[in-house]
Amino acid sequence: MTKPKIHTMKELSRAISISRPTLARYFEDETSVLPSTAKKIKDRLSEVDYVYNFLATRQNRKSTDLIGVVVPHFEDLFFASLLGSIETAARAAGFTIITQSSHGDAESEEKAIRKLRSMNVDGAIIAPLGSNKNLEIFKAANEDFPIIFADSYPGTDSSTADFVGTDNSSSVGIMVDYLCRTGEPPVFLAMPQLTSNALERQNAYFQQMEKQGHHARLVETPEGMELWEFEQYGLEVMGNHFSHGRHVTDTILCANDRIAIGAIRAANTHGLFFDQDGKTHGALRIAGHDDHPLSRFIFPAVTTVKQEINEIGRGTVELLLKRIREGRQGDSIKILRDGALIIRESA
Amino acid sequence: MTKPKIHTMKELSRAISISRPTLARYFEDETSVLPSTAKKIKDRLSEVDYVYNFLATRQNRKSTDLIGVVVPHFEDLFFASLLGSIETAARAAGFTIITQSSHGDAESEEKAIRKLRSMNVDGAIIAPLGSNKNLEIFKAANEDFPIIFADSYPGTDSSTADFVGTDNSSSVGIMVDYLCRTGEPPVFLAMPQLTSNALERQNAYFQQMEKQGHHARLVETPEGMELWEFEQYGLEVMGNHFSHGRHVTDTILCANDRIAIGAIRAANTHGLFFDQDGKTHGALRIAGHDDHPLSRFIFPAVTTVKQEINEIGRGTVELLLKRIREGRQGDSIKILRDGALIIRESA
Repeated sequence: MTKPKIHTMKELSRAISISRPTLARYFEDETSVLPSTAKKIKDRLSEVDYVYNFLATRQNRKSTDLIGVVVPHFEDLFFASLLGSIETAARAAGFTIITQSSHGDAESEEKAIRKLRSMNVDGAIIAPLGSNKNLEIFKAANEDFPIIFADSYPGTDSSTADFVGTDNSSSVGIMVDYLCRTGEPPVFLAMPQLTSNALERQNAYFQQMEKQGHHARLVETPEGMELWEFEQYGLEVMGNHFSHGRHVTDTILCANDRIAIGAIRAANTHGLFFDQDGKTHGALRIAGHDDHPLSRFIFPAVTTVKQEINEIGRGTVELLLKRIREGRQGDSIKILRDGALIIRESA
Repeated sequence: MTKPKIHTMKELSRAISISRPTLARYFEDETSVLPSTAKKIKDRLSEVDYVYNFLATRQNRKSTDLIGVVVPHFEDLFFASLLGSIETAARAAGFTIITQSSHGDAESEEKAIRKLRSMNVDGAIIAPLGSNKNLEIFKAANEDFPIIFADSYPGTDSSTADFVGTDNSSSVGIMVDYLCRTGEPPVFLAMPQLTSNALERQNAYFQQMEKQGHHARLVETPEGMELWEFEQYGLEVMGNHFSHGRHVTDTILCANDRIAIGAIRAANTHGLFFDQDGKTHGALRIAGHDDHPLSRFIFPAVTTVKQEINEIGRGTVELLLKRIREGRQGDSIKILRDGALIIRESA
């Protein structure tokens, strides 16, 4: 015997004699009704052929309960962790996330934003590329729904954007201060200029070195290495310096841990970290920034500044929900989190 | 002057005198119309207030052009890379992915599946947890839309599922064979039993060792360490063995690279990898499986078997699209890919 086909929640309510509001709550979130009610509904649903239609229920509402998330790459544990914490916070608030990668490419980023607009998301959290190319796209999208920028700013002008991220001047400052207190002042190995963090962290390094009365120096980097493969970047740049005996210093501060991991690999292959007895002699120091999940498993483990990724993820969702509820009147809101110094073995 | 508000594509077609089919194609994918047409549409759109409604257009169709993707964790570069390749392939085919993490938890996995059903996805790609808990849930969902399992099987029975992943018996076999040919036969450090790969790789190790006429041995692992933090697992298990001088062998095959990275960290902290002169003496050998993106930056770099993640990602999307087009009649389809031996420094 085939089950009776039921098309609308109204029909369903009549067929299994459960009130529509209760059914609606149940389909949104089973845990929002009494367990006994949930069980009763489940049992009776098994006797009919009905599929709850999320899109249909959203169609006649202002809200889709969808949040768009765009990151430059999934294949970066920083963004993957950010995505994880955003998804957890969004789900807890009853939202579903639509995730798009911009694949580090401005055109893909534009496509991703257009997709989010076409899906009528209630809001979006975007970890943007550094380029200025999509500022107009963001502006246009921002007229449809609130956008919170996470981790970095689009382009260079941060004035109008809602933002949640790390206070680079504080986090880099802490590390420069630590390195200067405990040894030779650091030379800075900058990130490829792919996001606003690259310039912010470099400037933060210059400011703190000046404050400490030290001469700031950048590690020379070859042209045309605007890689997202940061470990490879750190490995090639420092490998090149080490193999020419040109390591201008014994203390290198890398703009992020992925670069530091590559630089540490380069130092290890040149035997620069270990004495004859296999212990680090402590002359060469390489520090990073972010506290990448694998940094403590590298040998020597990476001394770094921890970014509170989970706090940043939760913070972006909270701020976005506030904007969705209250609209975007008033000034932009910036939530800058401090980093925490984590001293391990590499510096 | 405020722009005229336009609600339907029909009104829009009249207002800016572009045919509806052309507009429909444009909104689905700008690149599907002539650049000149796209520009004309863009210009005229700027003079009206119209927002294309993805949900509305999907409402009256059988297809939503949505593909659901569920992975155990975003914060694992294997799954993050898989997600990236799936998103790229799906986007190229005109589909949007709805990404959910099961956070390594059967209940979250069930919630994720229910969400995908409620959103009427056209199909789903699932990297499932090993537990048998959700077999019924998968079965029920599979009546609404095709499901392709990626990387591992749900529970233990793989007979009925469409599947794309690595042929563990071949990939582990290659590594066991290499290790036996080049030195002492390996002891196996298994994965926590969190997915079907854990048992499959362990069995593959036993089979190959028997085939080679060697005695198979597992590294003892403490109870209650069913961690997803595989590096931590490898570090603790091997750190414990090394600190008790109980490393039963000089050749350890780890069930995946993340475990190997932890084990290599443990060996380095015990000075087991390097001679007085800082070179690897080659006595201790630690190998992995997967070719984790960071494996080549570890020191010593991890000798491993490469899983073709991009091929697996593209393959799951291709198979899913076939199932969406042709339905699910006929036997289940399994696509098993071989791994490729990658010899680096650690073994």
